Amino acid sequence: MFSSEDHQYMQQALRLAEAATRRAAPNPGVGCVLVRDGRLIGAGATVRTGGDHAEIQALKDCAARGESPAGATAYVTLEPCSHHGRTPPCAEALIRHGLTRVVAAMSDPYHEVAGRGLAMLRAAGIRTECGLLEAEARRVHRGFLSRVERARPWVTLKAAATLDGKTALQNGKSQWITGPAARSDVQRLRAFHDAILTGSGTVRADNPQLTVREIPDAPQPLRVVLDSRLETDPASRIYQGGNTLLATCVDDDGRLAPYLADGAQALPLPGRDLTALLGELAKRGVNHLMVEAGAGLNGALMQAGLVDEIVLYLAPALAGDAARGLFAWPPLQDLADKRRLTVDDVRMVGRDVRFCLRPVIADSQQ
Amino acid sequence: MFSSEDHQYMQQALRLAEAATRRAAPNPGVGCVLVRDGRLIGAGATVRTGGDHAEIQALKDCAARGESPAGATAYVTLEPCSHHGRTPPCAEALIRHGLTRVVAAMSDPYHEVAGRGLAMLRAAGIRTECGLLEAEARRVHRGFLSRVERARPWVTLKAAATLDGKTALQNGKSQWITGPAARSDVQRLRAFHDAILTGSGTVRADNPQLTVREIPDAPQPLRVVLDSRLETDPASRIYQGGNTLLATCVDDDGRLAPYLADGAQALPLPGRDLTALLGELAKRGVNHLMVEAGAGLNGALMQAGLVDEIVLYLAPALAGDAARGLFAWPPLQDLADKRRLTVDDVRMVGRDVRFCLRPVIADSQQ
Repeated sequence: MFSSEDHQYMQQALRLAEAATRRAAPNPGVGCVLVRDGRLIGAGATVRTGGDHAEIQALKDCAARGESPAGATAYVTLEPCSHHGRTPPCAEALIRHGLTRVVAAMSDPYHEVAGRGLAMLRAAGIRTECGLLEAEARRVHRGFLSRVERARPWVTLKAAATLDGKTALQNGKSQWITGPAARSDVQRLRAFHDAILTGSGTVRADNPQLTVREIPDAPQPLRVVLDSRLETDPASRIYQGGNTLLATCVDDDGRLAPYLADGAQALPLPGRDLTALLGELAKRGVNHLMVEAGAGLNGALMQAGLVDEIVLYLAPALAGDAARGLFAWPPLQDLADKRRLTVDDVRMVGRDVRFCLRPVIADSQQ
Repeated sequence: MFSSEDHQYMQQALRLAEAATRRAAPNPGVGCVLVRDGRLIGAGATVRTGGDHAEIQALKDCAARGESPAGATAYVTLEPCSHHGRTPPCAEALIRHGLTRVVAAMSDPYHEVAGRGLAMLRAAGIRTECGLLEAEARRVHRGFLSRVERARPWVTLKAAATLDGKTALQNGKSQWITGPAARSDVQRLRAFHDAILTGSGTVRADNPQLTVREIPDAPQPLRVVLDSRLETDPASRIYQGGNTLLATCVDDDGRLAPYLADGAQALPLPGRDLTALLGELAKRGVNHLMVEAGAGLNGALMQAGLVDEIVLYLAPALAGDAARGLFAWPPLQDLADKRRLTVDDVRMVGRDVRFCLRPVIADSQQ
């Protein structure tokens, strides 16, 4: 049904989409490529929130090249929008510019679109196709799709440990387990994420900033501290400089005040409910959430089935059994109950080894 | 000093040596290649204990090919022997057959040789050279060298754990952490080793046989159980079928008798002294010792600086902090005290990841 040229152009659009994802959030970072007579005549991707969608960027690029989009094919990684949101509908723009074919990798599950964009194009006599490289598009748009379809962000848990699975010494010291190359890699990972979640134990032990420091002009992720009972020090660095959400079950303005003095905001939680917390983050537009926490929060998120990916850095060293581990949960009774993972990637990062893993869904466990 | 041809023939001899190592123990598995007029005219390696040394095998191979060794060069991975041991001196045989040049990768540190083999050859007018690919020869002969130079075997610690460093559940269950490919790999590892050391905890938890099962005709390693206080069950499988040493501090024939009923032998230890235990194994001709034990013995061997290599299989799964860890030692106070490792190799073995590691000697730690 789709030609190899179709595949090639859609792959190009997907690469643009991937690169646009972080700055487009909470919108999906969409990619669009315009092709006429076997030639690419325009390309674009979603810019910052409230800015142009990919289709409009591609049409502007087309004009800047002195090309006409009339009679062209548009390859888009997500169905063009049909509604007036912060910007006018992209489907209308494609119709107005005389495109004759639109290929979408997947339809947009967002309730304001959900097939209406493609229908609008078809009603205008444009040939529309949908489903080219859909699995890859779902991967590229996983954060947006998770928020829209599951009402929670896509959750990537990052951890750094010695080869015997220790993230910190018994006395809490954890700086540094891994080497500089792995720590730079973590900076890139942070820069990709809309928000970073940590727990009270990590704030107390490490007093981290959880900011992106090595990448100039990178947008800073929202910092989220889960401190149900306000056990952290309000003078901790994470509460300074704003851009921090304090998720807590304490509903007492007097106790909260010192935490919020430097611009942090409170996120009231009725109980220590991780699903509710992730739901609140999704409502605030977080597509991609990174977790940098200790064994308690890591284990609770895994047990709740709320982890989509794990990025694990293992340093070539041993800390011994007395040191702190990666995931806390009640003792298993049988090895069949261990949490299976799929290894997507394993490679050296400097002198450390990085694993990219996905929890295997329980139903498909052996 | 050495030509590229010299290097090539010595590499060939080293490959023969490596393949011969297990069956030659406690002798070194030496390789020998005979070359005349730019042609290989004979090759051989040490055969079983008391059998031919490599030089004799190569001379026999030369004769079988209808070639004459007169005027040839012999490449040997270890200095030819000069003494009458279980076999006559190889240096004499090389002289008698008219060899004119002998290249050795390294001299033999064994006190009965220690340079005398090369001196005997030189005295007979043979041109001798030593030191070609010496580092690689030291690696190939590491077990023999360790026994002769350090009076202990070369120690390779094998462990299998989940990615969070757990070797067994809290209830002791450990079968199976890793998959079939990793377990086959362990069989190959066992087949290479002269002896396997385990502890009382592992015998009690797993009741292992520690035999080579999947490789036909493989020699069985000597099984060594360290059970200082006789806490294992005398009916454990490891005490059956002979070929087992029970290292213990209990000096009571009556208590020992049930353990020794099926052919196992006692190795009396004055105290739980691991250096003394390894010394006793070296005296019994163990060049290569594999350790398959739990966190207690693993940690004690690491702390005593008695581990030369670690082969660690990590399964893509998580067991949680309550499960049992890899290495037990007292809590570290500072991350600088963590035991650093060098990663020699990391690769997938089936669905598991295998690390080949070497402990970094303390002096060179950061």
